[in-house]
Amino acid sequence: MSHERLTGVAVSPGRARGPVVRVAEPLGEPAGTPKPEDPQAEAARIAPATQAVAARLEALSATASGEAATILITTAAMAGDPALISEAERLVVAEGLPAPRAVYESANGFAKTLAAAGGYMAERVRDIEDVRDRVVAELLGVEPPGVPELTTPSVLVARDLAPADTAGLDPAKVLALVTEEGGPTSHTAILARALGIPAVVAVRGVLALDAAALLVDGDTGEVEVADAAEPVLTAVAGGPAEWNGTGTTSDGHLVKVLGNVGKPADARAAAEAGAEGVGLFRTEFCYLDAADEPSVADQRAAYAAVLTPFAGKPVVVRTLDAGADKPLAFLSPEDEPNPALGVRGLRVAFDRPEVLDRQLEAIAGAAQDSGAEVSVMAPMVATAEEAAWFAERVRAAGIARAGVMIEIPAAALSAREILDAVDFVSLGTNDLAQYTFAADRQLGAVAALNDPWQPALLRLIKLVGDAAKATGKPAGVCGEAAADPLLARVLTGLGVTSLSMNAPAVRAVGASLAAVTLAQCEALAEAVLATGDAKAARAVARG
Amino acid sequence: MSHERLTGVAVSPGRARGPVVRVAEPLGEPAGTPKPEDPQAEAARIAPATQAVAARLEALSATASGEAATILITTAAMAGDPALISEAERLVVAEGLPAPRAVYESANGFAKTLAAAGGYMAERVRDIEDVRDRVVAELLGVEPPGVPELTTPSVLVARDLAPADTAGLDPAKVLALVTEEGGPTSHTAILARALGIPAVVAVRGVLALDAAALLVDGDTGEVEVADAAEPVLTAVAGGPAEWNGTGTTSDGHLVKVLGNVGKPADARAAAEAGAEGVGLFRTEFCYLDAADEPSVADQRAAYAAVLTPFAGKPVVVRTLDAGADKPLAFLSPEDEPNPALGVRGLRVAFDRPEVLDRQLEAIAGAAQDSGAEVSVMAPMVATAEEAAWFAERVRAAGIARAGVMIEIPAAALSAREILDAVDFVSLGTNDLAQYTFAADRQLGAVAALNDPWQPALLRLIKLVGDAAKATGKPAGVCGEAAADPLLARVLTGLGVTSLSMNAPAVRAVGASLAAVTLAQCEALAEAVLATGDAKAARAVARG
Repeated sequence: MSHERLTGVAVSPGRARGPVVRVAEPLGEPAGTPKPEDPQAEAARIAPATQAVAARLEALSATASGEAATILITTAAMAGDPALISEAERLVVAEGLPAPRAVYESANGFAKTLAAAGGYMAERVRDIEDVRDRVVAELLGVEPPGVPELTTPSVLVARDLAPADTAGLDPAKVLALVTEEGGPTSHTAILARALGIPAVVAVRGVLALDAAALLVDGDTGEVEVADAAEPVLTAVAGGPAEWNGTGTTSDGHLVKVLGNVGKPADARAAAEAGAEGVGLFRTEFCYLDAADEPSVADQRAAYAAVLTPFAGKPVVVRTLDAGADKPLAFLSPEDEPNPALGVRGLRVAFDRPEVLDRQLEAIAGAAQDSGAEVSVMAPMVATAEEAAWFAERVRAAGIARAGVMIEIPAAALSAREILDAVDFVSLGTNDLAQYTFAADRQLGAVAALNDPWQPALLRLIKLVGDAAKATGKPAGVCGEAAADPLLARVLTGLGVTSLSMNAPAVRAVGASLAAVTLAQCEALAEAVLATGDAKAARAVARG
Repeated sequence: MSHERLTGVAVSPGRARGPVVRVAEPLGEPAGTPKPEDPQAEAARIAPATQAVAARLEALSATASGEAATILITTAAMAGDPALISEAERLVVAEGLPAPRAVYESANGFAKTLAAAGGYMAERVRDIEDVRDRVVAELLGVEPPGVPELTTPSVLVARDLAPADTAGLDPAKVLALVTEEGGPTSHTAILARALGIPAVVAVRGVLALDAAALLVDGDTGEVEVADAAEPVLTAVAGGPAEWNGTGTTSDGHLVKVLGNVGKPADARAAAEAGAEGVGLFRTEFCYLDAADEPSVADQRAAYAAVLTPFAGKPVVVRTLDAGADKPLAFLSPEDEPNPALGVRGLRVAFDRPEVLDRQLEAIAGAAQDSGAEVSVMAPMVATAEEAAWFAERVRAAGIARAGVMIEIPAAALSAREILDAVDFVSLGTNDLAQYTFAADRQLGAVAALNDPWQPALLRLIKLVGDAAKATGKPAGVCGEAAADPLLARVLTGLGVTSLSMNAPAVRAVGASLAAVTLAQCEALAEAVLATGDAKAARAVARG
């Protein structure tokens, strides 16, 4: 029999079938009446409710790890924000609103300010709304919105998931995630991959679908109505899960399988997963909560803590990627109409080279302290001239190997000249796709364009692979594309020499490469490049 | 003797030397005291002052034409905005502020709202500040800020020029424009080109320069301190100004020289300048002031008025390019963190195809009414699939030729597949540069990257030229790059088959092409592609 089928953007691999559980939609607006009889008593209810919500989020954070834990702690801090609480109390006392309505309005005012600030702040609006709805539910004495307690393995269907929702998920009970909105590089997608749950986002119409069960394909992006009577199914994609720990094709072409890390816990997880080194160490964690620039000594100690699990192994440290969605208090650029096209990454350093020099000094020290084989690379490089400027400063800091990210189309188009100026490059496929397709990574409406299987993106990657071969220098991939076991083969065929990913993907990617020859990868890459769109590219690769 | 020299971004060609006239910096904050003795009388001064300013701006608009006139009329309307005036009056009466201060605060509140709205609205902030300063000066009885009355031919130096400033310029008195801020695709740069004045923008340090005279090179971006005693110099670049009216190299390789137009007056100017047709007819003018979508009949009449001067000649009509910096009341996308990477151009039509279909119906009708040879193209196309979707609708509307803009890197990388789906393509080099370099066109800080001479951009254009040759279909350029007589030769060598520009550049580009053979253009293109940066590319082309 034929079943109704929808298509979205596949963001986390694997297939699964099972009963549907819907994530409750956010609460509606709480009523502005009746006026409380005792406004002071009504106002006094607000602080304890926020504290209860904050405590629950903190407890949740203890069961999470890595990025998810950080997000939960941040959200908990929002719930306890004194400004949010005092404005809500004022609205009860001065304007006679019921407490839930007062919290609702106070949070919305806060959200509006964040939205107007744009960039990273605007991305936090969803988190504030999540906090708002949890506190309102607490005050109303109803179940909070979000994922209900799961009693049986289920496919979760939602409009979009707040970080707090995905972080609380039990992978053993969640077969797959399907969202009506969201994009392939949203927090939701990244967390789903980190948890190893198949996920498809931007599935238009899935909320309107009346289905008791769904079959979800996290490789093709297809979501099909299933019979509730059919047995639960889970299957991971990407070839055999056995891997001997050395990144290589079956005929001995070495492709290092590396970890993406941002904190000491990530580094330990990557080492445990068998990563041969680190292809991307994001250093923002050390700056994000700092009002001022951290001292060289503090940076050195923080970096060494991440590098230590990889003593004797290669680690690529990326210098500070501030701006755009990651503004920093002490380095924030001016208001920009399009922060993603503004002063971010290395561009911040052109006006403030001393901040870069101090970071390089700290990295050089941490390399000595940890014994890791450290290279350094810069984010958001557009030209060979910029790459040469950066490499000079890296070498002046006594660091042997300098590289740059290739995440701007111009850099891919100038890969040869850039590789003449530095020792290696690393493709950031998330941003590279965003610019190549002029499609915001944060925007669900253009999510389908931001697909790493798009032939146009792969053609740009080939230019970089060709330049790497011509110069004999390495070209890695550290974007989400590297975590797809099938795409890993295509990238290898395009001339990519290392793949760096979150820890959960390491084994599957290593195993996928070990099952094919380099010639097979090259033939696959050629076939994929000749297709016209991402769907055809995937189909060719799977065939 | 050696002279101090600064470098900026060359945005309008030609060389000039002459005495410096500085554009007055904006007025400072007017004082908040003393409290007016008669607040009602003080408040009553505001409306007449705004009317005087609005009247002066309107008078100025009568002496301007095209885009400049539109900008002035819009600015005059802002000065007379009743909300601005009544809030200022309220501040005088309710808060006891002097009238200049009240106008200042009222305008700033308005500016803040515009800035928060982002995109096109945020770009209008500079205009509001210009209106604010003119009204404040009127109330204070001082000279308004901006360009002083010029008594002798001079080089104007400014931080940045408001549209109202550049629009009031007398080209006979202005030798060149130099600004400390601004970018190559800012209104200022575009207006300077339209007026035929050499201009260099983003010249860091020029305001601090103590120079009585300057030598300005609008081709290289160099600005050099000159002796005030040296004679005034003006020279236009780009080869002989004689042109026989047919776009061709000296050996008969045809490259149509076309006009970019947006209104009937532009079309007449382009026809008078000798344009062989229109390579870009922007249709936004018909929508911009509309609260609702204009009727098919209204659109048809509006388009026909632009097409009529080109009866019997080729005209490429671009369908509505809404979104990003051109939001429309009836089609505005949701708040987007990066509007330039959001739902704009053809992407708006995916959800609202009926708006596109009605526009195509109006264009087909206008083609019949005018007798112009009309083709239609879509803005912001990323993939061959999108191109095919558009071409199908164009053909269904009975229009013979369908094409697309290539202004997204992915489209250039898929030029072959796109040309298989449509009849022609047209390179929008302004947006293509913005995405290729991940550098906002509106942002002075990244202006140097947005240079059409960047080899990485020219490599992308070559991919399109190659695809055009392989398919035997035309590939034009309708971005600012086409208006540079020297770059026009390079583009021809890269395989571009037509060049479309604002009217003032037509003759110089036609003459420049007529002076060289196709083989010379191809050799030039090859030499330019082999350079590492825009400066080297320009030097090679000039050598």
